[in-house]
Amino acid sequence: MKPSEVAEEVNAERLVRRLGELGEVGRDGAGRTRLALTPQDKEGRDLIVGWLREAGAQVKVDRIGNIYGCLPGRNDGPPIMLGSHIDTVVRAGAYDGCYGVIAGIEVLHCLSATGSRQQRSVAVAAFTNEEGVRFTPDLLGSRVMAKNIALEEALDIHSSDGNVVREELERIGYLGDLSPWELLPAVFLELHIEQGPVLDASGIGIGIVEAVQGHSWWRVVIDGMANHAGTTPMDLRQDAGVAAMQIAIKLHNSAAKAGIPRVATIGSITVEPNAINVVPGKALLTVDFRDPDEEKLREAERLLEISLRKAREAGFRASAECISRSSPVRFDPALCSLLEQTAAHLGLSARRMLSGASHDAQMLAGICPTAMIFVPSRLGISHNSREHTEPAALAQGAQLLLETTRQLAVVGESNGITGIRAERV
Amino acid sequence: MKPSEVAEEVNAERLVRRLGELGEVGRDGAGRTRLALTPQDKEGRDLIVGWLREAGAQVKVDRIGNIYGCLPGRNDGPPIMLGSHIDTVVRAGAYDGCYGVIAGIEVLHCLSATGSRQQRSVAVAAFTNEEGVRFTPDLLGSRVMAKNIALEEALDIHSSDGNVVREELERIGYLGDLSPWELLPAVFLELHIEQGPVLDASGIGIGIVEAVQGHSWWRVVIDGMANHAGTTPMDLRQDAGVAAMQIAIKLHNSAAKAGIPRVATIGSITVEPNAINVVPGKALLTVDFRDPDEEKLREAERLLEISLRKAREAGFRASAECISRSSPVRFDPALCSLLEQTAAHLGLSARRMLSGASHDAQMLAGICPTAMIFVPSRLGISHNSREHTEPAALAQGAQLLLETTRQLAVVGESNGITGIRAERV
Repeated sequence: MKPSEVAEEVNAERLVRRLGELGEVGRDGAGRTRLALTPQDKEGRDLIVGWLREAGAQVKVDRIGNIYGCLPGRNDGPPIMLGSHIDTVVRAGAYDGCYGVIAGIEVLHCLSATGSRQQRSVAVAAFTNEEGVRFTPDLLGSRVMAKNIALEEALDIHSSDGNVVREELERIGYLGDLSPWELLPAVFLELHIEQGPVLDASGIGIGIVEAVQGHSWWRVVIDGMANHAGTTPMDLRQDAGVAAMQIAIKLHNSAAKAGIPRVATIGSITVEPNAINVVPGKALLTVDFRDPDEEKLREAERLLEISLRKAREAGFRASAECISRSSPVRFDPALCSLLEQTAAHLGLSARRMLSGASHDAQMLAGICPTAMIFVPSRLGISHNSREHTEPAALAQGAQLLLETTRQLAVVGESNGITGIRAERV
Repeated sequence: MKPSEVAEEVNAERLVRRLGELGEVGRDGAGRTRLALTPQDKEGRDLIVGWLREAGAQVKVDRIGNIYGCLPGRNDGPPIMLGSHIDTVVRAGAYDGCYGVIAGIEVLHCLSATGSRQQRSVAVAAFTNEEGVRFTPDLLGSRVMAKNIALEEALDIHSSDGNVVREELERIGYLGDLSPWELLPAVFLELHIEQGPVLDASGIGIGIVEAVQGHSWWRVVIDGMANHAGTTPMDLRQDAGVAAMQIAIKLHNSAAKAGIPRVATIGSITVEPNAINVVPGKALLTVDFRDPDEEKLREAERLLEISLRKAREAGFRASAECISRSSPVRFDPALCSLLEQTAAHLGLSARRMLSGASHDAQMLAGICPTAMIFVPSRLGISHNSREHTEPAALAQGAQLLLETTRQLAVVGESNGITGIRAERV
């Protein structure tokens, strides 16, 4: 790679300023609440559309509300797509999702600024309802694109407050007429904050994400017998709370000590009647298993089933319902190698890693070569107003996104990056 | 004891009928809710007052609302007192408390029916706010009598819904003018359902209660760090939920395996933010220790403190607040022996046992020789609309109460029961 082939630098000041500006939309205490398809989301989308146009892109909106900003290439093949989302959780940080979209716009600015059209089209996408807070399932816009859910089914989804995706899209003016499969990408790259502590703890600036771990979510119910806490001897109890806690500790320890699965979380536990002087008669808990290896996930699920069987043998009613499951997703090895080479070329410290969280990229991985770039999250804090990434780290990530896009779109066909399948799946 | 000295039998049919009649007051689904000093409580009190008068007793009400029905004896010494309470928890059974009061009225009926006045006065008491659901502390009427709380302080207690004991007593017409210390008893006997499974499981009809175990109640708070369940490796977590559950299991196991203390209950546990995909940052749990031995209670409290110290050493903030504590109460050994002898004389199966629950008798034990009689509770279920005791078992308990009262009040001074201190403490 010759120095002259390196694109000019992203405008870090503008990148950080726009993150701050978008972060003001939906301001909610120290954070911002910009749930999908609310007036706050509309206000955020309007900002993005304006910035896309400012970067020279043609803006299109598809029938599930995904926004695209396109910079046409010299050939009319499928675009190199960069993107993420701008909807948020409740009282969120300013970086999750927004960073990938705004950094993508920076890439468009840089490509436009060269004056000469790149070989391939480049598009920036902002996908609808990634967080899944207001409408279930999450990753909705990318899920439709990947045909993981039918468009009509997605449009008919009701929120917990009784609103429907189609009507809410219409209300905010983002029910587009583009087919969600019109702009299927040749390659997809998502730049995102890590949302975990690994990069921050190790002082490394760039994470090249090889895979999104799969998850397996369970709701467990244990029924025992509520009894008087003072009068019921220990050996005559059927304490559903203790039974649930024993299961929780066992699953936690399997992950913590044996790595089966990589992470296991008991995020929620409640007991009934939840009174200081009553032995719990019922307990509910949730289990969140995640692992990049499908077999490890299955092994953890077997452990849960064994725990439940033991509880039943001890006289409890015990059942578990799977409320969400996804298999691990592997990203494109050649694209990961390209990211690694490009980071090295730019002098950035980088490591390969996993994504623990879900991202639109895992949907896109089903339809085209896909990878993700992570930058550090301070203390790993995310989904929280205290989410923070240093401006310099934000700029490095955007620079890697720019240079990699340039390799793919401008010089790709002549620089020997042959591993990237550019055809649609 | 000559057969002629055995009093006539209690009227089991009337006893069971009245339990049913009082049990209709405050009907609430399958149970009844007759919280202290509510209109429902007034309606129950009115029934009791009528039945006391029907049994030939003089009815008096003291300044904390305790109701007394008195049958004067030939001498004017302090009375043999029988009693319990008629206030209930929410959606309660029909037996808890009410049984002791209504059986006491049966005893008065039988004593009145003999026509000859007994040596000592006999009084039946229905104490105010035993359950403590609406006004804290519990055992309020007997607590005032035992000077465990000042009368004026008791009258000023506010309920959680903003009402004051004094005004509520006045509103329902039970703010009496009798001094709560006017009728201090020579002896106190409380007949009660067991509220635990011991008698029911062993097929024994009578429990002679030697002691009320002490209790030690704690609210524990653990602060860790909330984090993303997918992205935070197990070794970088400070999972407050797991820390709390480990403490809970440790305390539970100490009781279940080593009897330290006799019973330990984690009745309540909550975690924050209580979301399936967030590592809990905070956990709250309650601990209920009970033991008839003060030293065992203290040992359990030391175990809790050690658990908290270990949690702190592991980086958590961990604290515990004692929210209620009572030392064990031993009942009068001579009175327990008298109950045992009398049960044997009546051909009733009986065993010595502990009370796991609190009762007015534990307050009375501070001022006069006191004991309790238990009858079986089906499956140990109590504080529940499914509370049940067979009519035959109810009749046996009332019969033992009658015969023991007769031993104390009619023939007591001549039958060699010298162990019972009849003086006030």
